[in-house]
Amino acid sequence: MSVIDDVIKANESYADQFQLGRLPIPPARKLAVLACMDARLTIEPMLGLSTGEAHIIRNAGGIVTEDALRSLIISHHLLGTEEFIVINHTDCGMLTFQDNELLQRLERETHKSAAVPAHFHSFTNLESNVRRQISRIRSHPWIPDRIPVRGFIYDVKTGRLNEVK
Amino acid sequence: MSVIDDVIKANESYADQFQLGRLPIPPARKLAVLACMDARLTIEPMLGLSTGEAHIIRNAGGIVTEDALRSLIISHHLLGTEEFIVINHTDCGMLTFQDNELLQRLERETHKSAAVPAHFHSFTNLESNVRRQISRIRSHPWIPDRIPVRGFIYDVKTGRLNEVK
Repeated sequence: MSVIDDVIKANESYADQFQLGRLPIPPARKLAVLACMDARLTIEPMLGLSTGEAHIIRNAGGIVTEDALRSLIISHHLLGTEEFIVINHTDCGMLTFQDNELLQRLERETHKSAAVPAHFHSFTNLESNVRRQISRIRSHPWIPDRIPVRGFIYDVKTGRLNEVK
Repeated sequence: MSVIDDVIKANESYADQFQLGRLPIPPARKLAVLACMDARLTIEPMLGLSTGEAHIIRNAGGIVTEDALRSLIISHHLLGTEEFIVINHTDCGMLTFQDNELLQRLERETHKSAAVPAHFHSFTNLESNVRRQISRIRSHPWIPDRIPVRGFIYDVKTGRLNEVK
């Protein structure tokens, strides 16, 4: 049995016990979280959030890409979120390679080139990466200045968030 | 107190009880999930996943953007995932507007234009949207044909996943 068949089976039990069928679309706590896709980050319990309370946007690295900006703009303007947080983490896979190396490896292994993605967004320093993401959000013309945007590094060994000031 | 201060406080309790400090980087169940950012989707319990088992990628709509492809390529080639699932859901905010309307509204309200994002990726039909996302993944030259890519619509009223065939 594939893992996908397993998770479908698990969802049947989830649905049998489901009691959250009347939540509204807008996140109750007006929060949007941008975090890395890393399997060791389970965002809701990490932040004490319940289902229905926050938008959760995730990608490789927790990077403010065009797509993350798209999601944050929709989150605020259409669905009313008023605070944003960015979460990167220790021991991130994005610290382990350089964009050019990965590009060359993919072309070599697959014998194919691809125009997309144009960048992989690897990085070398966690704190400065978090600061760069915050500033990308703050400088976007459609994100109002009043929205707090704060950044954190999650420590995968301790479960603790440390703010990047 | 802001919501961000609240979640930092909640994280202190989480860290005090934390016992997952030795998980490896590669997802244990070799699964990557792409889902909508919607607050009503709590991916791990919905799929019976534990911390450390799957990459979770999320954006507005659960769309296979350039950024989602970047994340999936990194997930497979650097971190060993071997199955992908795409999750859209009923009552999605992306069904409630058209890209042009939102663009005009943002320009009117902020008195500013922006080059990024180039698209908002609103859509009108859930099933065909899911099929389009699956085919975008399958057709990427760096995603091997052997990787199962399956798509689902999550029903926010019942908690149940329905596969799009």
